[in-house]
Amino acid sequence: MRVIGIDPGTAIVGYGILDYEKNKFTPVDYGCIFTDKDTPMEKRLVEIYDGLSALLDKYKPEHLAIEELFYFRNATTVIPVGQARGIILLAAAQRNISIKGYTPPQVKVGVTGYGKAEKKQVQQMVQRLLNLREIPKPDDAADALALAVTHINALHSLAYGLTSTRTLSEKAVKKDKLTADEFRELIGVKR
Amino acid sequence: MRVIGIDPGTAIVGYGILDYEKNKFTPVDYGCIFTDKDTPMEKRLVEIYDGLSALLDKYKPEHLAIEELFYFRNATTVIPVGQARGIILLAAAQRNISIKGYTPPQVKVGVTGYGKAEKKQVQQMVQRLLNLREIPKPDDAADALALAVTHINALHSLAYGLTSTRTLSEKAVKKDKLTADEFRELIGVKR
Repeated sequence: MRVIGIDPGTAIVGYGILDYEKNKFTPVDYGCIFTDKDTPMEKRLVEIYDGLSALLDKYKPEHLAIEELFYFRNATTVIPVGQARGIILLAAAQRNISIKGYTPPQVKVGVTGYGKAEKKQVQQMVQRLLNLREIPKPDDAADALALAVTHINALHSLAYGLTSTRTLSEKAVKKDKLTADEFRELIGVKR
Repeated sequence: MRVIGIDPGTAIVGYGILDYEKNKFTPVDYGCIFTDKDTPMEKRLVEIYDGLSALLDKYKPEHLAIEELFYFRNATTVIPVGQARGIILLAAAQRNISIKGYTPPQVKVGVTGYGKAEKKQVQQMVQRLLNLREIPKPDDAADALALAVTHINALHSLAYGLTSTRTLSEKAVKKDKLTADEFRELIGVKR
């Protein structure tokens, strides 16, 4: 299973691509798409679209995990970041990639098991899980990898019916009133 | 000169396409792209992208006027509408269509000359300017036509150096510290 995590933004879009087979995470690629603040916004959106499309076509992930936005956080940037997020959803949906959003606290739980974990703790856990020599830089790439880890942990837990403080499965199933089987089918994971 | 006005949204995207030659407005087409609220958001974004792309390819407008969003208005919808707005900017920028955003008060001034005009007054002025038998329905299409009228009035005023309460030219020129000539060049309007 291949998952791309995306930390959306206008100046920096972080991405992290992971493979997950036999309980093992393998980092495939991670980094950022940068755009210049002096470029008109619509051209920056084209750059994000083209950059992400190239990544999706090259690596062909089956799932995309993206940060969920809230207007009461970052009120001044919510509109431009929302615009960029729309572009990312479009590029993924055009390729029939399954998409799931996670809030920052969900990512903290998904990676460390603790919803109030420090940013550093999340990054260190990502580094350990992926067996990297150092914490990925910049933060946007590390955040994108954390999103991918969160999604894999959620899918894994759902698919295998695991329950622990690290799993999001029960919450997701309860929230959507789905059985674990229905959810597995929904996300296309085979038991 | 051909202008498309866009009232962005997720369930309804209003559009209005106008020609403007020799001080005369000619409506080319107007209406809405509708998406179903039960469809996943990313698929709705694809529908908006495909629908708008088809319109842009068919009518080949040179300018696109779109509503400017503010997070303190419609706080609950600002993220999904922002996502849809990003899609619209992308489709236009991919075709090198020049893009300009207008706030609702700017549209009121641009159409009626009065920043606190009622919605109905704006719609009636659009109807009169375009010589339509009735007010365009739904409101989203009427709003899109009002955006196109606003943009044409702004370009016209700038290009010909007119000043009146209906023109946005002076404000735009002052705000951006451009001469009328520089602004004409910027927006590609020949004197």
